Amino acid sequence: MSTHIQTVGIKNIQLPIRVREKGGGLQNTVGTVSLQVSMPGERRGSCVTVFTAALNKYMDAISITNFSKLLKEVQETLNAESAKLSMDFPYFIEKKAPVTGTRGLMEYRCTFTDGTGTDEDFVLSVQVPVTTLCPCSKEISEAGAHNQRAEVTLNVKFRKFIWVEDLIELIEQSASCELYSLLKRPDEKYVTEQAYNNPMFVEDVVRKVAVTALHHPDIKWFSAGVESFESIHKHSAYAYVDSNELVHNHRAGDKHKK
Amino acid sequence: MSTHIQTVGIKNIQLPIRVREKGGGLQNTVGTVSLQVSMPGERRGSCVTVFTAALNKYMDAISITNFSKLLKEVQETLNAESAKLSMDFPYFIEKKAPVTGTRGLMEYRCTFTDGTGTDEDFVLSVQVPVTTLCPCSKEISEAGAHNQRAEVTLNVKFRKFIWVEDLIELIEQSASCELYSLLKRPDEKYVTEQAYNNPMFVEDVVRKVAVTALHHPDIKWFSAGVESFESIHKHSAYAYVDSNELVHNHRAGDKHKK
Amino acid sequence: MSTHIQTVGIKNIQLPIRVREKGGGLQNTVGTVSLQVSMPGERRGSCVTVFTAALNKYMDAISITNFSKLLKEVQETLNAESAKLSMDFPYFIEKKAPVTGTRGLMEYRCTFTDGTGTDEDFVLSVQVPVTTLCPCSKEISEAGAHNQRAEVTLNVKFRKFIWVEDLIELIEQSASCELYSLLKRPDEKYVTEQAYNNPMFVEDVVRKVAVTALHHPDIKWFSAGVESFESIHKHSAYAYVDSNELVHNHRAGDKHKK
Amino acid sequence: MSTHIQTVGIKNIQLPIRVREKGGGLQNTVGTVSLQVSMPGERRGSCVTVFTAALNKYMDAISITNFSKLLKEVQETLNAESAKLSMDFPYFIEKKAPVTGTRGLMEYRCTFTDGTGTDEDFVLSVQVPVTTLCPCSKEISEAGAHNQRAEVTLNVKFRKFIWVEDLIELIEQSASCELYSLLKRPDEKYVTEQAYNNPMFVEDVVRKVAVTALHHPDIKWFSAGVESFESIHKHSAYAYVDSNELVHNHRAGDKHKK
Repeated sequence: MSTHIQTVGIKNIQLPIRVREKGGGLQNTVGTVSLQVSMPGERRGSCVTVFTAALNKYMDAISITNFSKLLKEVQETLNAESAKLSMDFPYFIEKKAPVTGTRGLMEYRCTFTDGTGTDEDFVLSVQVPVTTLCPCSKEISEAGAHNQRAEVTLNVKFRKFIWVEDLIELIEQSASCELYSLLKRPDEKYVTEQAYNNPMFVEDVVRKVAVTALHHPDIKWFSAGVESFESIHKHSAYAYVDSNELVHNHRAGDKHKK
Repeated sequence: MSTHIQTVGIKNIQLPIRVREKGGGLQNTVGTVSLQVSMPGERRGSCVTVFTAALNKYMDAISITNFSKLLKEVQETLNAESAKLSMDFPYFIEKKAPVTGTRGLMEYRCTFTDGTGTDEDFVLSVQVPVTTLCPCSKEISEAGAHNQRAEVTLNVKFRKFIWVEDLIELIEQSASCELYSLLKRPDEKYVTEQAYNNPMFVEDVVRKVAVTALHHPDIKWFSAGVESFESIHKHSAYAYVDSNELVHNHRAGDKHKK
Repeated sequence: MSTHIQTVGIKNIQLPIRVREKGGGLQNTVGTVSLQVSMPGERRGSCVTVFTAALNKYMDAISITNFSKLLKEVQETLNAESAKLSMDFPYFIEKKAPVTGTRGLMEYRCTFTDGTGTDEDFVLSVQVPVTTLCPCSKEISEAGAHNQRAEVTLNVKFRKFIWVEDLIELIEQSASCELYSLLKRPDEKYVTEQAYNNPMFVEDVVRKVAVTALHHPDIKWFSAGVESFESIHKHSAYAYVDSNELVHNHRAGDKHKK
Repeated sequence: MSTHIQTVGIKNIQLPIRVREKGGGLQNTVGTVSLQVSMPGERRGSCVTVFTAALNKYMDAISITNFSKLLKEVQETLNAESAKLSMDFPYFIEKKAPVTGTRGLMEYRCTFTDGTGTDEDFVLSVQVPVTTLCPCSKEISEAGAHNQRAEVTLNVKFRKFIWVEDLIELIEQSASCELYSLLKRPDEKYVTEQAYNNPMFVEDVVRKVAVTALHHPDIKWFSAGVESFESIHKHSAYAYVDSNELVHNHRAGDKHKK
């Protein structure tokens, strides 16, 4: 077995980074980075040195565009057959409360993943907390309905660049209600009624995310998962969809119709 | 600085244990154990050997009673000035759904902590998931009210032995509603309405737990915390009470009255 | 978009289980279970009820064989197009110290994963802690060499059934040294010298695991990862291999030769 | 039971912060904040609004000094009897490798905790990864010695302000060797030999930290814990010391002498 069949690298390097925002600014945050490379006669020592030097060069203004540049530079300097880089970080967006407009920062988790060599696709992942309100509970109960925090994870490959901010908005509009960091009384009334008027199971949320993503001209592939931390159970409800399965099923469905 | 001022020991040993149940049976589960001792001229090597031998002897039928015996045996064999032992484990109780009576296992977390030497008090901790439904949200909204899973942690020192099962019941009766692992439609209707008719902030839950614990003849000291994973926010709401503060404030209140 | 394209299910149910051991016994431990199904007009409520009933039936004596039976029973009862089940649990094996033969329990993590419908393959995963000692550090230093705990994860698809115990042994023989829960002085001397005489990078460990797995007649596919919690760095070193890549590279290598 | 006996607040708010560095600069990082207050007729809603407004005002240049100001401002605005604030964050320091001087960022964890009302003391906590090399293993083995990453946690109350940077240095000089993010070959030779020539158990590290902290004129109280992720075991070795116990034991020792 030759030495370049496996990949080797480093995991869990934390460092301060600056990420380009849709609004034009640069956001300071903290990234956790991992790198894997496949090299003939690989030398992990030099890999770390080359990687750190490249990181230092790029970390002051990281964007989806130069994340891939960073990876290519590392790969070429190391003469690696393939390389894979991932970085996850908390990302903050100022949101206005729905009625009073009170401003507050919401925290989301983002991950950039990219591979060169065998796989050149950039994947953008966002994790967005939302509210789900149970349709069954609403229907059968005289008043109220159980609801809870849920977490939507959307992974996307692009045809054309999409901002993190836009994917988060796509998700927040696909749940019973979105979350805020600061709500005054009129806002709390609004989100309570919004969720109550908009009951959704996890499978409804994942379907709404999927339908929007399917029709988005700039999305080539996606997968989405929704985990709901049920307020009446100790376990989670979970739903998942992968756009490759959708296409596969669509074709299978066409065959059945014939 | 002499060698016996600090404590030394081992952390995070996992092992299968059997815990005595209120109903008379023995429950198989998995414990995570830590031990700290303070010894003149301590020898950590012998500490591990002695501890492991004692653990093997007791782990087949652990109860609140013989947990303290285990600790004393370790302390005496090691000739330690003081010793501290803690063990946490998932604990399972079969619950019946409130209407249909359908049976399902609920998982709780328990911790036994004991110290001999400078501190001889046994502390029993239980973590119990419950539902909280927001009184403010209910009051101001036309329909519905935000609710969510919350976690109550109750730490107790005894006058007289109390079963884990009884502490869990005390907590489950102090929230908007309790949780179940398996609910059919009539049960889901019941828990939804039960929570809606019983709105409580985290501070209400912690107060109800505290009032019951204060009047329990067998509880010498307690502290309680409630963390609510808010369905409309990304952060948690949290309330906390320590019975020593209650007594302190009670006395302070008496003084003010005079 | 039809309703049966996505999967829906439950995550993170904890329950006591009994797992069949190579030696013939049944080991009591605690499992964490998740289930996903894809159904025409799926009803998550019935899914949970059916699943819980089936779990109760099987959890007293779980083995690789009846884990697949459990999944098939759930799938058929629900009339699901596909279903996926995973369960992870701590697994304990009594090991003898290498010189004195002192007995102690070691804890490993195992995961069973199985899918029916689109993917019928059972995957067995084991996580095994080992020691790695750095060859470079040994070579360049006058005395000593940095070493540390590392974690090997091996995922396997079978041609023929393999015991968890045998996969763990395969891994423990592929590192600088294996770990023990209880070592006396002659044992500690042994493991120190064993690691020093057997220096390996993470890439060496993953390669040794891979070579053994490739030649194992009962293994159809595997992937292996080694993460080393470096004692001289805050980050981890990591190496990974997938047997599909090995075959792919082997073929690619053949082409290049022509 | 009156309403102001318990505390109520919020947990786990993440937000970008800027922390004042010893060198004069401001470091961008991400903080996780919790606040608890005790109020007559508490209103959690207003608590969150007041707290968020105050946070927004201070988070651009947080230091040990204005962290206490932030807490006091929140307490006074809320008319709270007592208040407790904690914030933890990753903190980055550029270190030079010991031989080649190669620069790299090291990540540490810091926590600021402060209480006003019943407890006015500011506590600074730092978590520092280090190397421990086992003296017993070195002594009994023909070559080599097992070593591993360990984590030192030091909690300090001041007489006079101390920089985070200085506490970290105090800890790094108390272990077998300190950690670096980037080491070239001459550096790796150096740290390997440095650890081998400086063998320490966890109890030796905690004692060295304690002796230095005891003699530091600006430290009023401290506690220190060292957890070593043993390379030959799956569990951790752990040692702990509290300066109050030291003083207590010192006095007890004096009595015995008389």
